[in-house]
Amino acid sequence: MTDRAEAVFHRTAEQQVKAAAQRARAAVSGLRAQLGRRPDFYGELARLLRVRRQDVLDANRADLAAAASENLSAAGRDRLSLDERRVEAMAQMVLAVAAQPDPLGRVLEGRTLPNGMELSKHSVPIGVIGFIYESRPNVTVEAACLAVKSGNAVLLKGGREAAQSNILLETLCRVALHKAGLPEDLVQLLDSADRASARELVKLTGLVDLVIPRGGKGLIATVVSESRVPVIKHYEGNCHVYVHAGADLDMALAIVDNAKTQRPGVCNAAESLLVDRAVLKDFLPRFAQRMGERKVELRACGECLPLLPGAKPASEEDWAAEYLDLILSVRAVGGLEEACHHIERYGSHHTDAIVTRDLEAARLFTELVDSAVVLVNASTRFNDGGQFGLGAEIGISTVRLHARGPMGAGELTTYKWIAYGRGHVRAE
Amino acid sequence: MTDRAEAVFHRTAEQQVKAAAQRARAAVSGLRAQLGRRPDFYGELARLLRVRRQDVLDANRADLAAAASENLSAAGRDRLSLDERRVEAMAQMVLAVAAQPDPLGRVLEGRTLPNGMELSKHSVPIGVIGFIYESRPNVTVEAACLAVKSGNAVLLKGGREAAQSNILLETLCRVALHKAGLPEDLVQLLDSADRASARELVKLTGLVDLVIPRGGKGLIATVVSESRVPVIKHYEGNCHVYVHAGADLDMALAIVDNAKTQRPGVCNAAESLLVDRAVLKDFLPRFAQRMGERKVELRACGECLPLLPGAKPASEEDWAAEYLDLILSVRAVGGLEEACHHIERYGSHHTDAIVTRDLEAARLFTELVDSAVVLVNASTRFNDGGQFGLGAEIGISTVRLHARGPMGAGELTTYKWIAYGRGHVRAE
Repeated sequence: MTDRAEAVFHRTAEQQVKAAAQRARAAVSGLRAQLGRRPDFYGELARLLRVRRQDVLDANRADLAAAASENLSAAGRDRLSLDERRVEAMAQMVLAVAAQPDPLGRVLEGRTLPNGMELSKHSVPIGVIGFIYESRPNVTVEAACLAVKSGNAVLLKGGREAAQSNILLETLCRVALHKAGLPEDLVQLLDSADRASARELVKLTGLVDLVIPRGGKGLIATVVSESRVPVIKHYEGNCHVYVHAGADLDMALAIVDNAKTQRPGVCNAAESLLVDRAVLKDFLPRFAQRMGERKVELRACGECLPLLPGAKPASEEDWAAEYLDLILSVRAVGGLEEACHHIERYGSHHTDAIVTRDLEAARLFTELVDSAVVLVNASTRFNDGGQFGLGAEIGISTVRLHARGPMGAGELTTYKWIAYGRGHVRAE
Repeated sequence: MTDRAEAVFHRTAEQQVKAAAQRARAAVSGLRAQLGRRPDFYGELARLLRVRRQDVLDANRADLAAAASENLSAAGRDRLSLDERRVEAMAQMVLAVAAQPDPLGRVLEGRTLPNGMELSKHSVPIGVIGFIYESRPNVTVEAACLAVKSGNAVLLKGGREAAQSNILLETLCRVALHKAGLPEDLVQLLDSADRASARELVKLTGLVDLVIPRGGKGLIATVVSESRVPVIKHYEGNCHVYVHAGADLDMALAIVDNAKTQRPGVCNAAESLLVDRAVLKDFLPRFAQRMGERKVELRACGECLPLLPGAKPASEEDWAAEYLDLILSVRAVGGLEEACHHIERYGSHHTDAIVTRDLEAARLFTELVDSAVVLVNASTRFNDGGQFGLGAEIGISTVRLHARGPMGAGELTTYKWIAYGRGHVRAE
């Protein structure tokens, strides 16, 4: 593209995204007095997903056909594919969100002040949320449902590979909004072929209240560095399982196996195993055998290596790595404090677990490890909105402000203070 | 400065700020197991402020002497000045923060999941907080106390005009930390003469968890546009008082007077008055007389002008203006809905008040106006941490994420999830 053409192109993207954000803002204002109509939306959307299932599958087939010429990986193709079962699962998810308690209008705290004013803190929508993602088409419906549940508008910037599926699903959401008597512009899909639109979206201070990027590291890094709007990122998980000297070793084996191998490509999978020196000789041989059966590559410290046939020596980089693959780093530690130091130094504050029968070790670990989710005698894979009972999730936050860990509809709200006086004025 | 010299200078600022942030992070980790020692810090600091009062006043005199050659305004000089009373007020504030309930270790929610895992959400510190401010020296002590109360470390970047006072106050904080057996690096003052240090501070992703800018609009705009770290800004307030048709007009007069004139230079002062057409003729003449006595300049819509002797016509810009001065814009509205639309269009979502005796009007206004603090029959000046009972405040947030409105120690915390299982693993 020439500089001139690119400038025109960008201006167009800017105008389009800005106009969409303005419509979204108006929709949020409109929704404020119509919150009681939200339940009709979920029922209508679930019905539409079932009635128009074939249309959804046809759109998805068009995406898969386009992907065929673009060397999508088998895993990528699987993520993109819809079938009857997956469309029905979407409808079920919509109804599950509907069944969740309303995150709006909750009185979070309150008190009568010494001067007699009555003060209370109420949950309210955040406003306009930009959601930039690269994932499966069902995420589009999930994001739309969570946004409406929490009284927000969402601007969806989906992946190019799912363009046709997303257009169809956005249409169904908008029809359902219309039928429920709600503003259709609560859900808007941005042009997924237009790479400039994400860049414009993150600059709309005052129109967009929050941007949530969910996808590869490159996408997230770009959004964080370019955004002028607050960002809640869903970033990497270098998750640890620590086998304490007081662990039930059968339980430890089951937990580390599950944490590493149940779904190795996700952020809450374990990437590193820490084992107390006192149980190294008892635990590692059994562990090595299980990992061999699971085809997990082990990268170990010098002390563990002799006990792990076939393992490679770990480098300094391995301790900080998020493999997202069947690879696990293994290190011997002198005790709980050393384990916590290792996690503090190399971890990503995402999800870390201890296996122990010792009450004080459990207490200390949960106190000292500063991660979004800290588990005792359970797999790291439980850091998940569905598992936590939030219904659906828009993702797993890796920031420390506003929301940490799984984000459901409740995490898409903020609050306002309401104060009732009787002519109260402030003295000097 | 030559380019070369500037590069060296910046590298130095970068290294210094980075080293300070690393020390702060180590201090936060160290504090995690010593939270029980925090009460000793407040007592020691209050004692030191009293015992070393003359040293504080001497340092402040040096700042005032330096300011004399720099044409500081009378108001600026007053903000900078300390006297015996103000130092004692600092000591009292420290003890007030000490007396507040601990914001850490609270269990915010919890449940036993259907699978038997026990899940709970605990308040924890945010981590390392950068605080960039231009205000009075007591803010230094306030920020240090709130940071320690909430288990955080704070990097203080104060104004150049208060450099000597801040150095002395930082020293007292660090001595008090040391005497309490806490890490001194929980409180660190950055070089206030070095403008590059704020710029470096906001780039330290991974070392600094939050930046709070509090000061003029230029400062805040710079921080927001340059920061790679999450920002909670304390920005402008275009606050409204709406006199409903059902208002007690005596009460309305007292409230708008207080909201506008009690302290016109602050963010929660009223900038705009909306009056229902039905009460224009009853209310405006009395209002005009009071504003005349208070020397408030009025800028009014065409409908109000004839009833406000000496008022000027308001322009479109006036509706959006934050005057921070004895100026008030005045507009007639057709009713509650029009008032809410005006506030939505021109307001800054900071603080807005309705005066009414009508229950339904009060309910609708608090529902439809999307501001951090919405008041019924009370002055906008009540949006304040002290008034809300938070003890001290680090400021009044104007963002929608994490904290809205007054921020005390509780707003400087985040949370983590702790889950106890009994060997729980996830099935497919």
